[in-house]
Amino acid sequence: MLRLYDYLSSGNSYKPRLLFNLLGQPFDLVELDIMKGETRTPEYLAKNANGRIPLLELEDGTFLPESNAILHYLAEGTRFLPGDRLGRAQVLQWMFFEQYSHEPNIAVVRFWIEHHCLTPEREAMLPEKQEGGHAALGVMENHLVDRDWFVGETASIADIALYAYTHVAPEGGFELTDYPAIRAWLDRVFALPGYIPITQL
Amino acid sequence: MLRLYDYLSSGNSYKPRLLFNLLGQPFDLVELDIMKGETRTPEYLAKNANGRIPLLELEDGTFLPESNAILHYLAEGTRFLPGDRLGRAQVLQWMFFEQYSHEPNIAVVRFWIEHHCLTPEREAMLPEKQEGGHAALGVMENHLVDRDWFVGETASIADIALYAYTHVAPEGGFELTDYPAIRAWLDRVFALPGYIPITQL
Repeated sequence: MLRLYDYLSSGNSYKPRLLFNLLGQPFDLVELDIMKGETRTPEYLAKNANGRIPLLELEDGTFLPESNAILHYLAEGTRFLPGDRLGRAQVLQWMFFEQYSHEPNIAVVRFWIEHHCLTPEREAMLPEKQEGGHAALGVMENHLVDRDWFVGETASIADIALYAYTHVAPEGGFELTDYPAIRAWLDRVFALPGYIPITQL
Repeated sequence: MLRLYDYLSSGNSYKPRLLFNLLGQPFDLVELDIMKGETRTPEYLAKNANGRIPLLELEDGTFLPESNAILHYLAEGTRFLPGDRLGRAQVLQWMFFEQYSHEPNIAVVRFWIEHHCLTPEREAMLPEKQEGGHAALGVMENHLVDRDWFVGETASIADIALYAYTHVAPEGGFELTDYPAIRAWLDRVFALPGYIPITQL
């Protein structure tokens, strides 16, 4: 059975946990507490030199890090990855957008607030993060105005990747009031059979 | 023919330009000057709402942004993307690592220095960027100690994605003296048939 090293409350860790549940696929879960340094031990760094979660352990003992690479691995051959070349590239387009333009702004501010580590240096970075986060939300809103899902006619791993930190964006001070298309899309993800909330194992 | 919207000196734009040349595949090139705001015009934003380069225009007029998604699109069915599911996921693992842990540190500092826009606020962020950049280089060095390429036995788009900003890392103050395995890998990429330097069209 596949094994997932995970930290509840991390959106990146939630992504594969949500996909496992949407697929109805059982998995082993190993909870690690990143705030207690459990991803920086020599034992964990031997599994993932980058010291981050989530991490997927395959049945043969291979370790696969990076939340979006894990999503891609799990989704191949399922309805969550398009069957055509352009569709697959567009799914990746949104997943790279998520890791570059969305997560470093929205998820990072949420983390600072949630874990009470908003130092003066970080406080000074808030305006730039807020501008970047709202720019990303604007791009998403614009894209969703006339479509239900990010790529194609059904939910894909692009939606899962973007859902993870968008649905908790208000916890980082990013209110979604002005993004009606995003809010309608969040409702569609929430309604998917097998959906679980971020804090559920 | 495929058309690439590009900015010379951008490593992200260099990635697809390098792959086109390695594949021996002709393409149209449209040069844009990001420093003159040419990627923020209404005309360009209609092509890519995120306002970034590179951007690939397909023969049917579809636009595909995000350098690593473009690489994936171009590489499908070629020797630069592995044929097995785990290999493809590992290629993506390194490409997400590049966009999250490498580019925001190494490429961003190089950009600040090259374009003389190192404000006092950015100056204050330098230690964190330098620590993050060297952490990423350390992960790469560690991985390359006993292998020639990031995934499998031949060059893949994971190598192209990571090469783009690693080979110019010294321009951002990231000296590669202490990374012998990385330097040997840079030489291997340089020796690939069809290789072009970053400033070559």
